[in-house]
Amino acid sequence: MVNIAVLGYGTVGAGVVEVLNVNGESISKRCGHEICVKYVLDLRDFPGDPIQEKIVHDYNIIVHDPEIRIIVEVMGGVEPAYSFVKEAILKGKSVCTSNKELVAKHGAELLELSKQKKVNFLFEASVGGGIPIIRPLNQSLTADEIEEITGILNGTTNYILTKMSNEGLDFDTVLKEAQQKGYAERNPEADVEGYDTCRKIAILSSLAFGMQVDFEDIYTEGISKITDTDIKYAKALGASIKLLGTSRKESDHVYAMVAPMLIKPTHPLYSVNDVFNGIFVRGNVIGDVMFYGSGAGKLPTASAVVADVVDAAKHIGTNIMTLWSSKKLELSGMKNARHKYFVRVAGNTDEIKEQAALLFGQVEEVKAPDIVNEYAFITTHMSEETYQEKASNMDHIVSMIRVMF
Amino acid sequence: MVNIAVLGYGTVGAGVVEVLNVNGESISKRCGHEICVKYVLDLRDFPGDPIQEKIVHDYNIIVHDPEIRIIVEVMGGVEPAYSFVKEAILKGKSVCTSNKELVAKHGAELLELSKQKKVNFLFEASVGGGIPIIRPLNQSLTADEIEEITGILNGTTNYILTKMSNEGLDFDTVLKEAQQKGYAERNPEADVEGYDTCRKIAILSSLAFGMQVDFEDIYTEGISKITDTDIKYAKALGASIKLLGTSRKESDHVYAMVAPMLIKPTHPLYSVNDVFNGIFVRGNVIGDVMFYGSGAGKLPTASAVVADVVDAAKHIGTNIMTLWSSKKLELSGMKNARHKYFVRVAGNTDEIKEQAALLFGQVEEVKAPDIVNEYAFITTHMSEETYQEKASNMDHIVSMIRVMF
Repeated sequence: MVNIAVLGYGTVGAGVVEVLNVNGESISKRCGHEICVKYVLDLRDFPGDPIQEKIVHDYNIIVHDPEIRIIVEVMGGVEPAYSFVKEAILKGKSVCTSNKELVAKHGAELLELSKQKKVNFLFEASVGGGIPIIRPLNQSLTADEIEEITGILNGTTNYILTKMSNEGLDFDTVLKEAQQKGYAERNPEADVEGYDTCRKIAILSSLAFGMQVDFEDIYTEGISKITDTDIKYAKALGASIKLLGTSRKESDHVYAMVAPMLIKPTHPLYSVNDVFNGIFVRGNVIGDVMFYGSGAGKLPTASAVVADVVDAAKHIGTNIMTLWSSKKLELSGMKNARHKYFVRVAGNTDEIKEQAALLFGQVEEVKAPDIVNEYAFITTHMSEETYQEKASNMDHIVSMIRVMF
Repeated sequence: MVNIAVLGYGTVGAGVVEVLNVNGESISKRCGHEICVKYVLDLRDFPGDPIQEKIVHDYNIIVHDPEIRIIVEVMGGVEPAYSFVKEAILKGKSVCTSNKELVAKHGAELLELSKQKKVNFLFEASVGGGIPIIRPLNQSLTADEIEEITGILNGTTNYILTKMSNEGLDFDTVLKEAQQKGYAERNPEADVEGYDTCRKIAILSSLAFGMQVDFEDIYTEGISKITDTDIKYAKALGASIKLLGTSRKESDHVYAMVAPMLIKPTHPLYSVNDVFNGIFVRGNVIGDVMFYGSGAGKLPTASAVVADVVDAAKHIGTNIMTLWSSKKLELSGMKNARHKYFVRVAGNTDEIKEQAALLFGQVEEVKAPDIVNEYAFITTHMSEETYQEKASNMDHIVSMIRVMF
């Protein structure tokens, strides 16, 4: 029997307890041990709930109990999660977490510490909810040099963009509806401004390239400026607008960014809709692979956490090697990233057409029904620096969206 | 340093050597050991090729060399692969294979033997080429009870169906072209009649349900009877025809089958086109996940084999637990499998319409442009047994395709 403690009885914490109850028998079989929840740490009490007898309010009870071999951290946020997790590892306990803030900020250090203490720090649920992506990156793509990781990593924004696209609604209307349905937080900033995606692509990039990618270094743009008119243009192009977190190795540089981008049906991420997440990986020998599933939600996320618990229980006394050094990976500045750009400019169509040709050379004109007094075009491939330079000479740019085709 | 031997210098064998050469440095880093190819077993010689100095023609040299810790078996076919692999395991060597015939037939036994000998028998490349699916099933979906696995598991047939659909061509024309391009074998039976898919879904089902699923028990239907007219109807329905291998748990029974099926854009496998493969898994807590990538090809397959070699090298002396008992899983007969059925009947439209209503009750009429002298419809959900019974009373059925929506 392996005793575990769950820190935080919120949605994911309750999910972990539920998954262990519902699938306990088969989990024990796969694990080789029975997994027993001995404590649940929460500030609240849950009178009447069978969990009440396991509730403790003091972390010291857990961390000083030598029977506890694995700690599940599902509180979220950097503190006190970081202090709790660090202390647990120092005391020789493995930790499984769904906490992307913690992993993005302190992943490298906690992995190094786990290695020293011969325990494990596992975080499959921190990116892509239930989708297996951390373990495949660590253990299945070991023969490859990763060239690119691009993901739809946030269910809320994907739901909003899908809904805007399917129903022709504007951003604010859809956001309000998503909030009513509980798909978006009351304060939706972390999702819609891309901060959540940013932390997740930082974690994936760190694992893919084996060095610390600081999320603060990643250029991040959200979807709050995307309008129903942008969506109309996307449709006219046979394309879709998705909020992508992407990192790419080009010769010796890695650049990373989070931004809404136009993609076409030939890209595997095109058909990742609603609250689903998808993670596309390109390796130099495996070619293109994609992982798809529920990026959030109580049970899918808990499924990933419990799978980590099983792995930790099977590896008591042995560290599963994860290459993520604390050495910082200096990202190539955004100015070197190369794309095509979809640009909308307000004003007299003929005049702008002339100006666009003059500034950008060959451009592809984009027309969408019922849109007047503006001209839209797609540039050729060029660096962000070149684009910004040219665009600064263009008056009345309404919007620019990067193009991934 | 870990010495390995490669059995068979065909496409995949040459790929394994190439991947180890190209990515050797990062592979050693992830592995913790340098991987060195000491021997390559092949009947042929390769004068002028640097591999020549490693070529041996006698397996005894390899299996009796205590320096060889891992054997890569990429010969294909059950014999002599089975004898070679068994002997290797008995001699305390781990084996990594891409051989689906071997794994489908003897997987359970070879896994049991590896467990006894504290070595590993790994076979990520046997299903889905480079796509990580075996390791995720074993190690990432451990918190779930698998309810369904459905895959597009054969690139050749998927290429043919995609091409028929995109270009309105008939089966024979596309097959001929695929053969010319090297996407289909000269004898295409194993692919187009579904035998390849059948072995792969047998392997996946055995892992998902932890018991031996014999491929001979799986109802298997290929795509050679699919016509351009069927494709026209699929398009009229906004659907696509895909060759699917599927197994599903319903209450206490598991049924498995391989057949062309109609699927809609809402299904994640709908957008898996050309030579790509996709594997959809539904778990009772994780919900729906899908894995996508190159299902074949020299380097993608070699990538999966080498990832297994890395795993084997990291686990020398320890068996990685895989739940696949040799106890046979008795599949529920096809007669209990439930679907809707798309049926085309030749003759006078009004008469058939009446007969269809009489036999099948409520049906959905399907119309496609330029098709005359036949009537097509989709039934309600019913068991295969009920369908067959009703269909036997219907004259002139041209074709029936199962419907997955």
